[in-house]
Amino acid sequence: MPPIITLTTDFGTGSPYVASMKAVILSINPAVTLVDLTHAVGAQNIRQAALILAETTPWFPPDTIHVAVVDPGVGTDRKIVYARIGKHQFVAPDNGVLSRLALSTPPSTIISVTEPGYWLPQVSATFHGRDIMAPLAAHLSLGIEPASLGPAEHELVSLEWTEALVADRKIEGSVQAIDSFGNLITNIPGDALTNVPRGEEVSIVCDEHETHGIFTTYADQPAMTLIALVGSSGNLELAIVGDSAAIMLGVRVGTPCTVAW
Amino acid sequence: MPPIITLTTDFGTGSPYVASMKAVILSINPAVTLVDLTHAVGAQNIRQAALILAETTPWFPPDTIHVAVVDPGVGTDRKIVYARIGKHQFVAPDNGVLSRLALSTPPSTIISVTEPGYWLPQVSATFHGRDIMAPLAAHLSLGIEPASLGPAEHELVSLEWTEALVADRKIEGSVQAIDSFGNLITNIPGDALTNVPRGEEVSIVCDEHETHGIFTTYADQPAMTLIALVGSSGNLELAIVGDSAAIMLGVRVGTPCTVAW
Amino acid sequence: MPPIITLTTDFGTGSPYVASMKAVILSINPAVTLVDLTHAVGAQNIRQAALILAETTPWFPPDTIHVAVVDPGVGTDRKIVYARIGKHQFVAPDNGVLSRLALSTPPSTIISVTEPGYWLPQVSATFHGRDIMAPLAAHLSLGIEPASLGPAEHELVSLEWTEALVADRKIEGSVQAIDSFGNLITNIPGDALTNVPRGEEVSIVCDEHETHGIFTTYADQPAMTLIALVGSSGNLELAIVGDSAAIMLGVRVGTPCTVAW
Repeated sequence: MPPIITLTTDFGTGSPYVASMKAVILSINPAVTLVDLTHAVGAQNIRQAALILAETTPWFPPDTIHVAVVDPGVGTDRKIVYARIGKHQFVAPDNGVLSRLALSTPPSTIISVTEPGYWLPQVSATFHGRDIMAPLAAHLSLGIEPASLGPAEHELVSLEWTEALVADRKIEGSVQAIDSFGNLITNIPGDALTNVPRGEEVSIVCDEHETHGIFTTYADQPAMTLIALVGSSGNLELAIVGDSAAIMLGVRVGTPCTVAW
Repeated sequence: MPPIITLTTDFGTGSPYVASMKAVILSINPAVTLVDLTHAVGAQNIRQAALILAETTPWFPPDTIHVAVVDPGVGTDRKIVYARIGKHQFVAPDNGVLSRLALSTPPSTIISVTEPGYWLPQVSATFHGRDIMAPLAAHLSLGIEPASLGPAEHELVSLEWTEALVADRKIEGSVQAIDSFGNLITNIPGDALTNVPRGEEVSIVCDEHETHGIFTTYADQPAMTLIALVGSSGNLELAIVGDSAAIMLGVRVGTPCTVAW
Repeated sequence: MPPIITLTTDFGTGSPYVASMKAVILSINPAVTLVDLTHAVGAQNIRQAALILAETTPWFPPDTIHVAVVDPGVGTDRKIVYARIGKHQFVAPDNGVLSRLALSTPPSTIISVTEPGYWLPQVSATFHGRDIMAPLAAHLSLGIEPASLGPAEHELVSLEWTEALVADRKIEGSVQAIDSFGNLITNIPGDALTNVPRGEEVSIVCDEHETHGIFTTYADQPAMTLIALVGSSGNLELAIVGDSAAIMLGVRVGTPCTVAW
């Protein structure tokens, strides 16, 4: 079973910078399977990358190595870390990009990457993805010991993550991501809705937009209707059937969403 | 020879939803070769996906498994099907997305996918691409019998496909696709033009735009000229040399195109 | 070690034309590792593709086969060439797309591709990437002799490449590329700056925009500051920290940039 390395960056889909990272990896381990997780993260949007990693990486096989290069602090004293979180391995700048994953599953190993033996011989000041993280991931895929990369650390840098507030007959959350269809994905977990009624008596309000009922799938309502449902991420989503809710409603990440009944 | 699975979706290039499908496939069969056919299908544009599948899949080796997830009816009672069409295998919602292929090559096998044994244990209501179609394709690549997926069917759901009308000294067709260069690809097959003169005496009219002569390649005319030729799809194309005919002429899919001589 | 074939085109990221090239390659050599170098080259922008190839291909392992299809002259008498440049192999139209690489490393072999034995049986007039270059690359990856492809040539077609002018206390160059972050990458090599002072006394002027000092990394200056540094390409770059210099300054490829001290 060939080892898998995934790449997540904010370089833009189609960037040749991604190809140069793959080139470095294949030069060290030509037997690896490379998967683009996404390169469409907004420039320097650590929070968005953290959410995408938390939602997508668990679907990969155990021991997959995930490299995340959203790295506005490249060349400063921010650390580069290796972390084992659950059954997966991560190589990333220590800037919060792994903190959404670490929130639900505390890392079992954190290593501060300091030993240059597994880096490229020449390290640029502006592209540690190619010069440090890619070769590191390739060497990890060949079976080197993470402990040889540098000293152990106790904690990762974390962003602030707001949980939805569950009160009596009310849940207060917010939009935490918008997908490529323009669906609004909230931070309200489907689990919190188990005892919430699904019919007209439940009201979902996002910004000044209101809808009633929690449905199962997009096709449960006619086109152009605002609909609430528990999406494939497991969280409450708001969607406009057949269109983009983000564009139609002008809603952005951070907009409050309340479920009340 | 490792089995090949291709993916066609409307998730948008760079969508992490694509990565989660690949993750599910690699978890079941890590030896598979994954190829992105395209993820740039317009949202819910079944017709566009059907045309792309018809043009692109025949280039793949026999037995390739093609997964097409353009699925506005996800979670409704629309079926998911396995089909063998010619030498290729397909897994898709039964919504017409395979009907352009089936038009020229009637499927030799159609199975309605009903047996959940090859799906993920938990199936969401909104992402059958990840939860049903990806694991199914992975199991097919390991050699399971299509007949074990569910009952046989007689017919696929079909979209309406208009053929070009060949009359005396005239062929009436329309623009059926626009490629990334803005070239207008009609539904007039090159074969229908075998006995048509190639010189100035043949007139090609698309919307109110007219050009004369059928050429061999784009460089046969100067820059910014409207040119007609039989393109790499085997159909008549209209192009603006060095620019986008779709943008320059404001022509869209469905616009009538007539060849007369 | 499976052979690697990279693909560089102007088809647009997500184009099914790319998938049809991969299909042809995998039909001939299913064991090959395919890497997208980029498909985001501007339509028919040979110069941009030449720069991307020169910067990205050296990171790949020796003997990698690079296919570059930016081919406005497809179907004319422009040649298709095989070239060995340094440790790498290239298949491309002979239109200058390899000339940036050839500028620093003269090709050790140039073959004009004329023998149709390794092409697809049917060659369209408009898509030699799929019908000639893809099958050729696949056969090369199986070990055929380049000499069997056609007659040797002495020279590649070249574009004009302007070098930065190094004068007394002054270097005159220009912007030669813009990356996906909007950073302005000049043709001034980092080597030419070795003896240039790094402090406030050095002035960098691009169009009418001026900044002082040459820094190490983006984070050396506050957000929204215009900063000059030697980027990961090894050349002098101008960037707006945390934003797009190309958009903010309205600067384009070709804009003059001067370093003076």
